Amino acid sequence: MAVTEILRREPHVIASGVALLADSAARQGARVTRVSWAPPMAGTDADLDVVLADRRRQPANQDAVARMLGVRAMLVDVVQAGPALGLAPGEFLHAGPPIDWDRASGPLRGALAGAAVFEGLADDPGQASSTAALGITSLDSCHHRGAVGPMAGVISPSMWLFVLEDPADGRRAFCSLNEGLGKVLRYGAYSAEVVERLRWMSAVLGPLLRAAVRRRGPVDVTAILAQMVQMGDEAHNRNRAGTLMLLRDLLAPMAESGFAASDVADAARFIGGNDHFFLNLAMPACKLALDAARGVPGSTMVVAMARNGTDFGIQIAGTGDQWFTAPALVPEGLFLPGYGPGDANPDIGDSAITETAGLGGFAMAAAPAIVKLVGGTVASALASTERMYEITLAEHPAFAIPALGFRGTPTGIDVTLVVRTGILPQINTGMAGKVAGTGQVGAGLVTPPPQVFPAALAALAKLAAAVT
Amino acid sequence: MAVTEILRREPHVIASGVALLADSAARQGARVTRVSWAPPMAGTDADLDVVLADRRRQPANQDAVARMLGVRAMLVDVVQAGPALGLAPGEFLHAGPPIDWDRASGPLRGALAGAAVFEGLADDPGQASSTAALGITSLDSCHHRGAVGPMAGVISPSMWLFVLEDPADGRRAFCSLNEGLGKVLRYGAYSAEVVERLRWMSAVLGPLLRAAVRRRGPVDVTAILAQMVQMGDEAHNRNRAGTLMLLRDLLAPMAESGFAASDVADAARFIGGNDHFFLNLAMPACKLALDAARGVPGSTMVVAMARNGTDFGIQIAGTGDQWFTAPALVPEGLFLPGYGPGDANPDIGDSAITETAGLGGFAMAAAPAIVKLVGGTVASALASTERMYEITLAEHPAFAIPALGFRGTPTGIDVTLVVRTGILPQINTGMAGKVAGTGQVGAGLVTPPPQVFPAALAALAKLAAAVT
Repeated sequence: MAVTEILRREPHVIASGVALLADSAARQGARVTRVSWAPPMAGTDADLDVVLADRRRQPANQDAVARMLGVRAMLVDVVQAGPALGLAPGEFLHAGPPIDWDRASGPLRGALAGAAVFEGLADDPGQASSTAALGITSLDSCHHRGAVGPMAGVISPSMWLFVLEDPADGRRAFCSLNEGLGKVLRYGAYSAEVVERLRWMSAVLGPLLRAAVRRRGPVDVTAILAQMVQMGDEAHNRNRAGTLMLLRDLLAPMAESGFAASDVADAARFIGGNDHFFLNLAMPACKLALDAARGVPGSTMVVAMARNGTDFGIQIAGTGDQWFTAPALVPEGLFLPGYGPGDANPDIGDSAITETAGLGGFAMAAAPAIVKLVGGTVASALASTERMYEITLAEHPAFAIPALGFRGTPTGIDVTLVVRTGILPQINTGMAGKVAGTGQVGAGLVTPPPQVFPAALAALAKLAAAVT
Repeated sequence: MAVTEILRREPHVIASGVALLADSAARQGARVTRVSWAPPMAGTDADLDVVLADRRRQPANQDAVARMLGVRAMLVDVVQAGPALGLAPGEFLHAGPPIDWDRASGPLRGALAGAAVFEGLADDPGQASSTAALGITSLDSCHHRGAVGPMAGVISPSMWLFVLEDPADGRRAFCSLNEGLGKVLRYGAYSAEVVERLRWMSAVLGPLLRAAVRRRGPVDVTAILAQMVQMGDEAHNRNRAGTLMLLRDLLAPMAESGFAASDVADAARFIGGNDHFFLNLAMPACKLALDAARGVPGSTMVVAMARNGTDFGIQIAGTGDQWFTAPALVPEGLFLPGYGPGDANPDIGDSAITETAGLGGFAMAAAPAIVKLVGGTVASALASTERMYEITLAEHPAFAIPALGFRGTPTGIDVTLVVRTGILPQINTGMAGKVAGTGQVGAGLVTPPPQVFPAALAALAKLAAAVT
């Protein structure tokens, strides 16, 4: 277009930031378009320049997205954690980035204590003062063993795990079986009923599910996730339809498993009575997808967000297995009767892997009824999803949101987009009581602590500078 | 407000009908509000005057609405039709208003023929030329026996029925068990596989479900309907979540019923493999609610909409059991591979009882994914529900639509509102092939033939005139 042509056209002011210029131009009758824009996060300009100039970035992100979206997660087995993950007696896993007892929050300590009683390593969970006192010989992050765990996320050798596999390459991801709500280990409760339930899950539920899955053959968890998004679930704090579809798929083989009818009936009631049962399949399905994108040099895509109740950590496709951590925030939301904001522990659990994969808080537009659980309005749930498109690399082709005309959920968080816009990933989450032994106190909304993104960006910049 | 005050204010034009006045006023800078308005249906002015002036109308409609909304539908039993409905061998029921063989459509004839073979009354369903030739001794409307049936809606004495009961007064409603999709009796198919399936349903499924329901105790169908609307079902052509919730509730008692594990597994697979299974519980739940509003003098609320494949009939709270009928329209929508508009039979089935009770086409805003089945767009699904508020008396407190900020579905069609606005109830429906023996050919959208509403209005006017 020739400059003379531009001069002939009506002036059009594109304004962002403070409204002074736009208001003034508008008053003078000019055509004004206001653009929502904020400056990048403080102190990130130099790193942004380096990373945005990295010529590997765009193809690397395309590659990371394609790898993630190409994964099909199949439930192929149900196994005991010890042999499956190579956990010797006394070796325990937990959610989030690595942490030791001294820095561990109440709910993580409570869950470790309860699991130690369940394993027969300790008697009095209320008196635990160290991992050694509980008979725990080593403590590591679930993610370091290919696993994820909701809330405290404690996995001990005798627990049973779902095994998800991508048939394309045989890679696997693992997750514990969901215990239900309220007074449960993953929320830090460790009373006798909690341990009793874990014992039944190990003696009956795990072996029965193993028999059913082996009899039936693989269950397509990715396909169920796609259906759930059509049925008002976002696969983090609403897993109602997913749980029902899993039950549908496993009922016939459970009935034919040879187990006692009373065991089959107990298992059907247990699963059917817990709308969150499928969460523990959604999480490893998301991990399996995101793990496919790990180790792509130059990619700025987030491949894990996880919390241990003290720290919030993220991992990036282009920075290997390094964690970028900062103190976890406390969620805001709705509380169970008898509890209030002062009772809530900081954000905890590996379940933010769902948001990392385009579900959970990123898919709330598909699950408007979730606002009854986590707070907010239907409009704010829609707005959350809309906002996440600003910081993501793709729209998930399998997760189509009916209310948005079947647009795919925003998927693949880009560190540079988060840093440039200041928009933080929206997570919805259960809230654990901060005192060990309490259990769940509510559910709500939270974001990562902002500083993990500039930290990750700095590491990406350092690597980018090294290759140019 | 004093007239002088009105004269001081800016003029505000409220315009309806043709746009000429509004356009002209707007061009002159006047404030113009356009109101959507159409004249009442032709020839209804005198009857509208009488019915709208009937002082019984408002309290009667309030009463009818309260009765309908007060019903709780519980699945209390599963029984064989013969003894339950007093059907002797050879006595058959069908969907919609009463009709005989000579006027019956292809799918109704096909279903009658298939049911006659199932009952052992006939051998060659393809050669049927009359009910007598099929051994059918009497034919009546399901609604006349407290029952409803989807599509052809044929109920013969050996079929099994769901029994729904309102615990408040012990009233009951009945419906057959759903056979699945495609080549099934209710769509007019009668091949050997259709009859074989009906035999298995009578020999195994019915008795097993009876044992499970009796063992468990009543299943709250109204509560499941309320949950479904949160999960993307509208309970007419999407019953996916409802089917899964029913299966969840019946699994444990099925496992413990004492039936062979293979029968339990077969039944679980049959129910779990048919997303429409719950339709046959949604329909009698709606009938139970609407039957509570029958026989309220002066009420202009519709208590039944039903089609026999030839005629579309409605019944009104204030006009007893009288049917107002007219030729059924042909639905428009999406076709199964190999079929097109020329293959579709006119609208058929008792399933429009769901729309009559505020579900189905009236609840499509809660089920945007339905557009993949019946056609249209997500926006048109939302608009359908919004439009139905114009012709209904209430918002259903139990059926809250998440996408509309938990507004209740439009419920309780008012004949006077339909006649005054010309807005017809929106029904979504499966489409049967018009040739007997075909089965399902598609699914789509349809309305009642408009003339049934002026006919009902005329009857209401006659009754109103008689009491004043």
